[in-house]
Amino acid sequence: MDKDLSMYNIRTDLALEAKEMAAPGGEDIPGVWSEQDTQGEVTVSRMHIQTDEGARKIGKMIGHYVTLDVPGMRQGDTELQDQIATIFAKEFEAFLARIGTKPTGSVLIVGLGNWNVTPDALGPLVVENVMVTRQFFELMPDQVSPGYRPVSAIAPGVLGTTGIESSDIVQGIVEKSKPDLVIAIDALASKALERVNTTIQIADTGIHPGSGIGNKRKGLTKDILGVPCIGIGVPTVVYASTIVNSAMDLVFGHMKKHTPETGQLFGVFGSMAEQERLQLVKEVLQPIGHDLLVTPKEIDKFMEDIANIIASGLNAALHEAVDTDNVAAYTH
Amino acid sequence: MDKDLSMYNIRTDLALEAKEMAAPGGEDIPGVWSEQDTQGEVTVSRMHIQTDEGARKIGKMIGHYVTLDVPGMRQGDTELQDQIATIFAKEFEAFLARIGTKPTGSVLIVGLGNWNVTPDALGPLVVENVMVTRQFFELMPDQVSPGYRPVSAIAPGVLGTTGIESSDIVQGIVEKSKPDLVIAIDALASKALERVNTTIQIADTGIHPGSGIGNKRKGLTKDILGVPCIGIGVPTVVYASTIVNSAMDLVFGHMKKHTPETGQLFGVFGSMAEQERLQLVKEVLQPIGHDLLVTPKEIDKFMEDIANIIASGLNAALHEAVDTDNVAAYTH
Amino acid sequence: MDKDLSMYNIRTDLALEAKEMAAPGGEDIPGVWSEQDTQGEVTVSRMHIQTDEGARKIGKMIGHYVTLDVPGMRQGDTELQDQIATIFAKEFEAFLARIGTKPTGSVLIVGLGNWNVTPDALGPLVVENVMVTRQFFELMPDQVSPGYRPVSAIAPGVLGTTGIESSDIVQGIVEKSKPDLVIAIDALASKALERVNTTIQIADTGIHPGSGIGNKRKGLTKDILGVPCIGIGVPTVVYASTIVNSAMDLVFGHMKKHTPETGQLFGVFGSMAEQERLQLVKEVLQPIGHDLLVTPKEIDKFMEDIANIIASGLNAALHEAVDTDNVAAYTH
Amino acid sequence: MDKDLSMYNIRTDLALEAKEMAAPGGEDIPGVWSEQDTQGEVTVSRMHIQTDEGARKIGKMIGHYVTLDVPGMRQGDTELQDQIATIFAKEFEAFLARIGTKPTGSVLIVGLGNWNVTPDALGPLVVENVMVTRQFFELMPDQVSPGYRPVSAIAPGVLGTTGIESSDIVQGIVEKSKPDLVIAIDALASKALERVNTTIQIADTGIHPGSGIGNKRKGLTKDILGVPCIGIGVPTVVYASTIVNSAMDLVFGHMKKHTPETGQLFGVFGSMAEQERLQLVKEVLQPIGHDLLVTPKEIDKFMEDIANIIASGLNAALHEAVDTDNVAAYTH
Repeated sequence: MDKDLSMYNIRTDLALEAKEMAAPGGEDIPGVWSEQDTQGEVTVSRMHIQTDEGARKIGKMIGHYVTLDVPGMRQGDTELQDQIATIFAKEFEAFLARIGTKPTGSVLIVGLGNWNVTPDALGPLVVENVMVTRQFFELMPDQVSPGYRPVSAIAPGVLGTTGIESSDIVQGIVEKSKPDLVIAIDALASKALERVNTTIQIADTGIHPGSGIGNKRKGLTKDILGVPCIGIGVPTVVYASTIVNSAMDLVFGHMKKHTPETGQLFGVFGSMAEQERLQLVKEVLQPIGHDLLVTPKEIDKFMEDIANIIASGLNAALHEAVDTDNVAAYTH
Repeated sequence: MDKDLSMYNIRTDLALEAKEMAAPGGEDIPGVWSEQDTQGEVTVSRMHIQTDEGARKIGKMIGHYVTLDVPGMRQGDTELQDQIATIFAKEFEAFLARIGTKPTGSVLIVGLGNWNVTPDALGPLVVENVMVTRQFFELMPDQVSPGYRPVSAIAPGVLGTTGIESSDIVQGIVEKSKPDLVIAIDALASKALERVNTTIQIADTGIHPGSGIGNKRKGLTKDILGVPCIGIGVPTVVYASTIVNSAMDLVFGHMKKHTPETGQLFGVFGSMAEQERLQLVKEVLQPIGHDLLVTPKEIDKFMEDIANIIASGLNAALHEAVDTDNVAAYTH
Repeated sequence: MDKDLSMYNIRTDLALEAKEMAAPGGEDIPGVWSEQDTQGEVTVSRMHIQTDEGARKIGKMIGHYVTLDVPGMRQGDTELQDQIATIFAKEFEAFLARIGTKPTGSVLIVGLGNWNVTPDALGPLVVENVMVTRQFFELMPDQVSPGYRPVSAIAPGVLGTTGIESSDIVQGIVEKSKPDLVIAIDALASKALERVNTTIQIADTGIHPGSGIGNKRKGLTKDILGVPCIGIGVPTVVYASTIVNSAMDLVFGHMKKHTPETGQLFGVFGSMAEQERLQLVKEVLQPIGHDLLVTPKEIDKFMEDIANIIASGLNAALHEAVDTDNVAAYTH
Repeated sequence: MDKDLSMYNIRTDLALEAKEMAAPGGEDIPGVWSEQDTQGEVTVSRMHIQTDEGARKIGKMIGHYVTLDVPGMRQGDTELQDQIATIFAKEFEAFLARIGTKPTGSVLIVGLGNWNVTPDALGPLVVENVMVTRQFFELMPDQVSPGYRPVSAIAPGVLGTTGIESSDIVQGIVEKSKPDLVIAIDALASKALERVNTTIQIADTGIHPGSGIGNKRKGLTKDILGVPCIGIGVPTVVYASTIVNSAMDLVFGHMKKHTPETGQLFGVFGSMAEQERLQLVKEVLQPIGHDLLVTPKEIDKFMEDIANIIASGLNAALHEAVDTDNVAAYTH
């Protein structure tokens, strides 16, 4: 029997985690191509979900997904951050090429999320740091140096603070300003604490219903916007219950390795199916608030660092005149 | 010969100041009705520019203008602030009635200006403090208590940070979210230092090209948006050169009162026409940067106070269930 | 054999949690008096550690501890917040009376922690919101209304940002400004996610080495400062590993209740001693960063709310002229 | 008769401006040595007040004063900012050498002023950006690389928010932490709008009573602190009345140049002594609030830029291992 992911309550917005759940042993999934390479401290995972079957198995849409994993990203090492921005820029350029966006094509960068909720402020922070150039093309097109393209940027707020779906706001702006491409940045929920603020995902499928950590129920996709949308996501929060569950997995795994006779080790609990156990954990924890989304104590600094990496990477990827060797100089 | 204001470089966004310039002696202007009354520390000036002639003389569009002048607004007195909010709410309700907006009509509040420039942050600050209710009407219309209307709010940013004209962004959002009325809040430049952060203007003519203190060149008007637009403005900055010029006027006036033979008092300078003198002042000051817009040192606190007054006043004026006697309770 | 807490690595700064660990069944501990009462949604626990033996068992110093537990504190309900502030003020007044601080005695409020790390910013936020009056007593003593006392306040920063131990900075300021009492506010680590931002502890033992969530290694105590020190603490973070461990306890407890034959339920794992299991959990989780301190996603709003409660409560407790019935009016 | 400055109400904290007022024609003042040189866009003025007579004439204490004037500092040009930081570092090193502070001598950086008042936040902003190293020398002295010295930093707040004189707080901290040198940074008032946010002053006389723009009435000097104190000041505000008065001077000067017969040009007003005219301007303007301190509209960005320049410059001047060629890399 097929083990479709739709039956699970997967608390992850990351395609890579969804794939790991669908194929925990790393086995091939039909219709899903993937590769992985490591550049210094950065692991780049590229995945192409090619068929409906693959999409169904993983629970994510057909499309390209790239994930940068950098366990050291939380260390505040500025040299490493420049490296990540450079790798990000190169991977992002591949997306632009695949979509067919011309070097002069105009881009609207959308920073989803809420200014006032630190772990949800990734989008607004990137918007604040990215180079905005569209106004020069509109007001003095003759004076713009070659090697730049028109880039605009907006942080539309969240439903709770504006009263309007972000998706509707962005649609309205797209219709007026007519970009060739939308890039949407959002904070995500992860299944694993170790991925929080160490992972960046790029996907040409846009941003989807249910994604993100706030009330962002309508998506930002080519269907809705009329132009392609590349989504950039960073997990910044994790459910307390998934911390518990995946920790249990690890503890069980650790003990099994050392003492093989599992039955005796964990009794009935050890032999429960994963979903049954997750359900149990949730039931027990909910009354005391363990179903909270949590984030690391140092979240303020982490958000600032990652927003700078993404803004630097986007500047380098979008403008030929901005050098990927020194991307950081164009943000502040 | 008519003394049209269009020939002057009036550095004011306030209709009341423009009228004072057109009729410095307080004389009647044909086609312009006005009245003034004082409620405690608050002076309310109501003006109706009724004809093209009146509009041309004053240099402002045909429409209604109400100005609240409160010299004590900078004192940080919370009781006075509640009074101002209540008076603001009543005057604002008169605008709603005149326009014919129904108590259930939906409203989009637009906070123009730049978060990161304190004296330009009035609009975003009001948006942050105002009650937003539209989402409840969209998601659970049956559960909204009577006495509220759908209110949404957006701070679209400025051209320099988004790359898109605020006016275009707002148009796009209006087309998607279809409010019955737009309320736009903006920081203004005044001609007089004593008006900075002590005056609030309401006008049913919307927000106009050239107004505001940043790059907001397209307007927000019924013509552009397709729905009525009420503009709320507060002068938060003043040109250094106009401080100088109006100070000179005061000094001359003061000396004349005490020593009548003006000619001897100021010689050639005293007999220059006002515009000639202003031109001279500007010429002399420009090279050394006196053409700066300046703002009081305590601007952070002033902005917070006025944004709260306006947000409280709007909450009371827009929702019947919010009591004008205790408007402050609905903001934070 | 005695079960001394010193042998445990207790990750809690709360005396109440330490007592629960020392006497999990609620049994009496010699030398420790305690009582508990509930006022609306607020549970007030008062504990007096009276003897060395009691102190050793619980792992906290001899002294009085009061804990306010309010599960609903995270809801943002302003009425409840006023209630908590009033109860806090009354409990705090009992501390002042016990210490023998006169109604005119001068007080220095010390806000420990780091402005730039949201969950560590409790102290600085309280300092920003509390009424400061000492300057009036110094500059114009004749004009101060009766019912007030001299209150000063400082947020000394943390070792990482100042290069100086907070304790040394405070000592220096105490020697110069000679308060009769120091009140120190700090963010704490809890053992339980459900206590994060729902609990306030007051203790007349000051602030102790190892407490707090940053590098604050020297204490603030009567011994060091020469004047009494009341510590106020709020748990704002929890170790991911303790979330996991206490969740496991809950799951085991839940399953045991339903299926009594424990041995079979959890095998070897179930029969491990708590400390052994905690050690195992830490060993397994450390390599993947689960030893992080985490905090709820909504931490920005939670911190603001609790800082207001404490500032309001302190204003009411410290100044006879400030009414406990309307404490909120004196903070902003 | 001597023209002592003590009889004037000079609204300037800058020694250079005070000297210009005492010797408007640039004439020599006995007991005052000065020189000036220009490096690119930066004019460096060095002044040594050597005698009591010189001090009395200028109205500033005996000591060394260096002023960096950079009209372009408000342009936000990062290359120019690096240049200024480098020149600042070199001038500052000369102060260190003259005082005799050893390369390993410990330093306490004091950021005077108020976080919450943008034009008064210079000190706190520098403290936030400067490298703090003292804790490494205290906790792991063997592991500190050569080329660094112990630097600590504190922003003590202002009397209105702490209830304690900044000077007392700093004294207490100096007594506990025993630095060899104190560096105090403060925002100043200038006599000239064009100096606001374009000038940096360094002085080995510390910070003096009456200086600064807030309530900082006690000084930070070697007499009070027991160790030398170098003051760094930046004018960030100007009185509206001094804008007016100096503008009048400019206008009169401009007209005189073009039409020599002054008497006829300005009559009685033109022949008033400067102080008489200033008095008149103040009398006329006070009732309408023109005695406000004002600051440029763009103050938020200006403060950030200058704080970075000073922090970068201090890092380079204080640590031999930090290269003056690349000072900016050590701040963020």
